[in-house]
Amino acid sequence: MQTDLSRRLGIEHAIFGFTPFPAVAAAVTRAGGLGVLGAVRYTDPGALARDLDWMAAHTEGKPYGLDVVMPAKKVEGVTEADVEAMIPDAHRRFVHETLARHGVPELAAGDRSGWRITGWMEEVARAQLDVAFEHPVKLLANALGPPPADVVGRAHAHGVLVAALAGSARHAVRHAEAGIDIVVAQGYEAGGHTGEIATMVLTPEVVRAVDPLPVLAAGGIGSGEQIAAGLALGAQGVWLGSLWLTTEEAELHSPALTAKLLAAGSGDTVRSRALTGKPARQLRTAWTDAWDDPGGPGPLPMPLQGLLVAEALSRIQKYEVEPLLGTPVGQIVGRMDSRRSVRAVFDDLTAGFERAVTRLARIADHTPEPLPRPRPLP
Amino acid sequence: MQTDLSRRLGIEHAIFGFTPFPAVAAAVTRAGGLGVLGAVRYTDPGALARDLDWMAAHTEGKPYGLDVVMPAKKVEGVTEADVEAMIPDAHRRFVHETLARHGVPELAAGDRSGWRITGWMEEVARAQLDVAFEHPVKLLANALGPPPADVVGRAHAHGVLVAALAGSARHAVRHAEAGIDIVVAQGYEAGGHTGEIATMVLTPEVVRAVDPLPVLAAGGIGSGEQIAAGLALGAQGVWLGSLWLTTEEAELHSPALTAKLLAAGSGDTVRSRALTGKPARQLRTAWTDAWDDPGGPGPLPMPLQGLLVAEALSRIQKYEVEPLLGTPVGQIVGRMDSRRSVRAVFDDLTAGFERAVTRLARIADHTPEPLPRPRPLP
Repeated sequence: MQTDLSRRLGIEHAIFGFTPFPAVAAAVTRAGGLGVLGAVRYTDPGALARDLDWMAAHTEGKPYGLDVVMPAKKVEGVTEADVEAMIPDAHRRFVHETLARHGVPELAAGDRSGWRITGWMEEVARAQLDVAFEHPVKLLANALGPPPADVVGRAHAHGVLVAALAGSARHAVRHAEAGIDIVVAQGYEAGGHTGEIATMVLTPEVVRAVDPLPVLAAGGIGSGEQIAAGLALGAQGVWLGSLWLTTEEAELHSPALTAKLLAAGSGDTVRSRALTGKPARQLRTAWTDAWDDPGGPGPLPMPLQGLLVAEALSRIQKYEVEPLLGTPVGQIVGRMDSRRSVRAVFDDLTAGFERAVTRLARIADHTPEPLPRPRPLP
Repeated sequence: MQTDLSRRLGIEHAIFGFTPFPAVAAAVTRAGGLGVLGAVRYTDPGALARDLDWMAAHTEGKPYGLDVVMPAKKVEGVTEADVEAMIPDAHRRFVHETLARHGVPELAAGDRSGWRITGWMEEVARAQLDVAFEHPVKLLANALGPPPADVVGRAHAHGVLVAALAGSARHAVRHAEAGIDIVVAQGYEAGGHTGEIATMVLTPEVVRAVDPLPVLAAGGIGSGEQIAAGLALGAQGVWLGSLWLTTEEAELHSPALTAKLLAAGSGDTVRSRALTGKPARQLRTAWTDAWDDPGGPGPLPMPLQGLLVAEALSRIQKYEVEPLLGTPVGQIVGRMDSRRSVRAVFDDLTAGFERAVTRLARIADHTPEPLPRPRPLP
């Protein structure tokens, strides 16, 4: 599965695997794709450095990437404490009451700082980048549009390609103007932050809008047939995130959450602001229902909501409180119905892609021309 | 573009064109697809008979279909007047006030009955079927799931295949059990009644759920690349509705509405209950905003909402009251940016499909094997 972009990156298949788990990212790279490690959960640059060292040792010299969450606009001198102070008491009470109603235990003192999602703070993301540029990272992706201009310049100076996610053609054009190299067109059906335009419509719109920049199709892709569809739409590769969550290498550390993912159908997700304050697709749970209830206070804007709920999510996950337990995941969750190795999943993708292309060629009647008859000798 | 289904129907390309306009349906059929005429607006069976006569005379003996709106469950003895009586006065006032706020004139007495959408009433749909079975219709589609068992039987006795729209795999299985022949998997991005699962995810789910029944992909398809994507997902054909609305043959009778469609982007639609009481994708207008406003009374359930707003929609359309003027249309509206003939649109579809398949085959490296070298003579 070779496109101009896959050749440029030196990968065998134009499949990009986004994941918060180093073991998954490394396995995607070893299988012939490009594993992209999500950095948002690394508060400590040292921990990120250790995991990137591990990646380097487990990827056979093949390329991999890092995904950071970095707003293009800098807010000068705003600390986490400043942001915390903007959260209304009524919202804190709502979190407290919702957890109490479901009997969610408090964290032990030592666990409290383990799960803060502070990776979106620019200072944290910049510390992550310092680490990344000391490692042989080949792709830097940013989940919130293009990174600041100096970061794009620094990446290019290191020979690192920069990708940015976009949910509309308008955003994609803005990203292209910021000098990035690859646009990830993230459709409505995708897990995590997503707009309202479905992959089928969004992908060709973005391809056309940023031509000749390469585009990756994201959202709703979890099989070789869906990869063929994404590439038929003009993408030069596909970006898959949800599919890896139920692989053997995924370190979810929650059997209950894994069981929920394996059982969920495509209709069991919701696009909700409950997680970060921006619409993000995730498992529908009693937690998202509480935030989406018109009778409740409703989610705060980003980044307040993320700070407000960070500890609550940590408690829900640690104690596996089933009704509240969720995760960002796309509609493709309906297809994730067994635990398998990344390699097995990946091989299914490439085999399914081959089958889909063969079938399409037959539909188009691209059967080989019969050989010309030998001309009679003179 | 040949599949088992297209061969069975004797059409050149597995492209199904749904439209309320006989001239469009006939042109789709003449171009090599299968035109499907929407019957919901025909209150008078005589008018439908005349239009089907016209279709027969303008389709060169090639096959075409009819789309009715018929609930599988029969409600005995309920008349239109009974249903009208269930509409609350507050909702009637809201319609009145919304029209007044935008200065929408009253209809002249003679115009009043022209635009009732009563085709969803079973007695009307059955009268339509009597007409259909006297014409060489080859496909009967139903927008609200499978038609009643006796209708399926009657269609089969006439050699007519029956198709039903489904927005989820669960509905598709129910339709298959009702004995229909084709499932139209209608994704979130589609115009008209639609569920929440996007075409990219829905199509393969439905294909798998009803195998070996043939499935048509619907929603987000308006180019040859998107047709290739739909077929890559396992569909045996594609079902396109929105794309024809801006063709030269479309009898919208509203230059203002045509201009709105040509100008709209993919983000200018909304999935709203404003039209029929069930979620249907349509242009976002001041009318849909009024109904979707949490401060308003909100839409009534089907069929009440359709009856409530029928005359209002007729007035808005007749007087082309721009802010309120809308129509069911999918996210593909962003691609509809010029008025062209059905034939020109259709030829673009087939050419784009060919290009997409050729590109995919190159990505998969399906280049023809080099010829074997001639063996040296002994």
